[in-house]
Amino acid sequence: MTSTTDPKGQAAMGLAVKAADRAHVFHSWSAQSLIDPLAIAGAGGSYFWDYDDKRYLDFSSQLVNTNIGHQHPKVVAAIQEQAAKLCTIAPGFAVDVRSVAARLIAELAPGDLNKVFFTNGGAEAVENAVRMARLHTGRHKVFAAYRSYHGATSAAINLTGDPRRWPSDNGSAGVVHFWGPHLYRSNFHATTEAEECERALAHLEQTIAYEGPQSVAAIILETVVGTAGVLVPPPGYLEGVRAICDKYGIVFILDEVMAGFGRTGRWFAADNWGVVPDLMTFAKGVNSGYVPLGGVIISERIAETFATRPYPGGLTYSGHPLACASAVATINAMRDEGIVENAAEIGETVLGPGLRELAERHPCVGEVRGLGAFWALDLVKDRETREPLVPYNASGADNRSMADLAAACKQRGLWPFVNMNRLHVVPPCTVTEAEAKEGLAILDEALSVADAHCA
Amino acid sequence: MTSTTDPKGQAAMGLAVKAADRAHVFHSWSAQSLIDPLAIAGAGGSYFWDYDDKRYLDFSSQLVNTNIGHQHPKVVAAIQEQAAKLCTIAPGFAVDVRSVAARLIAELAPGDLNKVFFTNGGAEAVENAVRMARLHTGRHKVFAAYRSYHGATSAAINLTGDPRRWPSDNGSAGVVHFWGPHLYRSNFHATTEAEECERALAHLEQTIAYEGPQSVAAIILETVVGTAGVLVPPPGYLEGVRAICDKYGIVFILDEVMAGFGRTGRWFAADNWGVVPDLMTFAKGVNSGYVPLGGVIISERIAETFATRPYPGGLTYSGHPLACASAVATINAMRDEGIVENAAEIGETVLGPGLRELAERHPCVGEVRGLGAFWALDLVKDRETREPLVPYNASGADNRSMADLAAACKQRGLWPFVNMNRLHVVPPCTVTEAEAKEGLAILDEALSVADAHCA
Ligand SMILES: Cc1ncc(COP(=O)(O)O)c(C=O)c1O
Ligand SMILES: Cc1ncc(COP(=O)(O)O)c(C=O)c1O
Repeated sequence: MTSTTDPKGQAAMGLAVKAADRAHVFHSWSAQSLIDPLAIAGAGGSYFWDYDDKRYLDFSSQLVNTNIGHQHPKVVAAIQEQAAKLCTIAPGFAVDVRSVAARLIAELAPGDLNKVFFTNGGAEAVENAVRMARLHTGRHKVFAAYRSYHGATSAAINLTGDPRRWPSDNGSAGVVHFWGPHLYRSNFHATTEAEECERALAHLEQTIAYEGPQSVAAIILETVVGTAGVLVPPPGYLEGVRAICDKYGIVFILDEVMAGFGRTGRWFAADNWGVVPDLMTFAKGVNSGYVPLGGVIISERIAETFATRPYPGGLTYSGHPLACASAVATINAMRDEGIVENAAEIGETVLGPGLRELAERHPCVGEVRGLGAFWALDLVKDRETREPLVPYNASGADNRSMADLAAACKQRGLWPFVNMNRLHVVPPCTVTEAEAKEGLAILDEALSVADAHCA
Repeated sequence: MTSTTDPKGQAAMGLAVKAADRAHVFHSWSAQSLIDPLAIAGAGGSYFWDYDDKRYLDFSSQLVNTNIGHQHPKVVAAIQEQAAKLCTIAPGFAVDVRSVAARLIAELAPGDLNKVFFTNGGAEAVENAVRMARLHTGRHKVFAAYRSYHGATSAAINLTGDPRRWPSDNGSAGVVHFWGPHLYRSNFHATTEAEECERALAHLEQTIAYEGPQSVAAIILETVVGTAGVLVPPPGYLEGVRAICDKYGIVFILDEVMAGFGRTGRWFAADNWGVVPDLMTFAKGVNSGYVPLGGVIISERIAETFATRPYPGGLTYSGHPLACASAVATINAMRDEGIVENAAEIGETVLGPGLRELAERHPCVGEVRGLGAFWALDLVKDRETREPLVPYNASGADNRSMADLAAACKQRGLWPFVNMNRLHVVPPCTVTEAEAKEGLAILDEALSVADAHCA
């Protein structure tokens, strides 16, 4: 915590930090002169705080990456030790900590996902998974879902199925978008999860048939769709996609950048359904983002394609020692401290029941969905029609009710993750019962703001 | 240094590290079963060493990124301090160390390049520069040079003008490749630098005319072409490209991922010619790769485009605190210790003269070119015909003479940077006169191996 003995000096520092930011930092996804970034003085566990000593309970895990919370002492120590030993070395060498990180990740990964290609983040992981799939199959098209986010480099943003794609869409990268299952807003006029699942699979297979199965290299899916709404697939869906991939010789890529490493209460979200993809992408939770790191976990069959034929991809910092050291420490801490189990438990016993209870009292809550430390409230104007509280991709006045809701959370000391008409509840996987309840109580108050916009 | 009291135990550890690597690490740009990665035990300054206590003088700066050498104590300390304070925070916040890093970089950058968008590495920097240029101009095509490398994500690899593009080339990203100046292997039948410059500019302008100037968003160039041969532009070329961009309203992007932060003996390579681009990409030298970091430095005019209109790009780790802290410490150390001046001096007084002297004695050296700590030997079968020592994109037996040359360097304790028919001499910018001379002496011996393949 910051000191409270000199609040004036602190506050002045905060203003200086913000002024310096505004002078030279260009922010992502933003109109530069319309933003007002909060200056952060420090962070620890499930909280961070500003220069006015105001603490925020981090119900966003930043960008859903600090699965072990802020400043975990064992991971901080591991970074410090590795810094003293060897900060960087080129990808072509063998290094102890890179090998250990790869082994730990491969051991956790399901099936024969045994080789790890490291990147700096999620987008690069997706880029490389797609390249591997194209070269492995000799095919070009990649199927990706509407309601998805896969990153912002060229191939990754073209795969993405949210409006962030539009300004960068070159429309010609061989991407085909299809609809995944989402019963609450069904594209298939389904009324049960089983019907939604069956129809979504039929839709996918028919679209493949019309695109030409022999031209389809890969299907990429977020195991549990993250930013686009915490969409948990119905039982049978992922297994069905696996079967379609096997039938047509298509590579199945699961993007676990957000869903992996404990978020769903399992090490990997795929473990909830026992499904094994051919390639799995990861980032974020692997080391809680303490050092930029991501990667692709590769099946033996696809690795074999590049046994004697060079894999034509790389980056200067593939397998960065400092990043790998923080991953090793993170995975060990998660295992030693039962952090994955905590996420499962808190979801089952506190977040799930607590959010459902809020839904009963707040007419603006249309649906509660999620698992582990990965939840969303789908907010509506009207529970009957399910009309979203704000229109798709709304901004300015149209987005007012969601902006007010976010402001109400922040005012009360809770940092929310808000996207379109949804409020995501994505605290660190280390969140305690008391913290989760503190957050739920704040949400209870803040949701009343949104209720006012309901029919 | 590692201990020499227990060489057996050390060696066994090295074997274990390598075995662990082969079990789970998937390496970039490689056929996985044909590589034999050297296991590295440690590094310091201009050297690194293996588990057999064999030291290598690092004449590659890893992938031309450790401009301050290995394990600079001030930068290591800064990483450790920042790790204790705040490892990670989302890009949307203002943070002291991110603001300072942006300010230092903006202050160093030429002209009105005043805003910094941070990424994790070079490819992402290029991706974002291209997106900015396209949205700023409302145009789609991007001109890039043959003989170039811009990274391996989808847009970056499509811009790249070397064979690494081929397997990932989707052929449709609006990229137009043109020829830059390179007198030694002129595409323009020129005989003087002035003629090469004039003809290269005419070629560029005519190609723009035939592609339609109003469809061209950007021209991207490495200020000094790096991996593709350390090609120093002739006087007047960059100024000429600047004038063409101004004439047609095209955004001029200089990629300084490899050439920036001291490599050429100036903070930015553009400073050698007093040219100011509209966007400049950086990575590598900004923090010597101690933590993954890259970015785009943005002119006021282009930043203004995104003042009230959101910039549609981002990444989870934009402006990562640990990475920014290492950049601040690196820039301060470079300034305090005169590291940029050292690179200039060593190039002028030791590397340049020394390499030219080698060229006199070794018939395989066709041309010596470079500046600062950034040099290449263009190796030939025959000085008259200038036939490259190995064919373009050779591998296996065809590449034998270059592979033998690299092996001869390594055997003698020098780690070289080899690409096609070239040996690049790219030590840390901190390299001492004694180290540079040690390296030149080893090169002298190793080049005799290549001489044997000469006509
Ligand atoms: C599922 C998924 N894939 C990929 C990405 C991109 O990761 P990064 O921002 O590290 O490039 C994200 C980021 O939110 C993500 O949620
Ligand atoms: C000029 C240039 N641009 C871009 C890149 C790509 O950088 P990264 O490997 O960090 O993605 C490189 C890497 O060598 C480079 O030399």
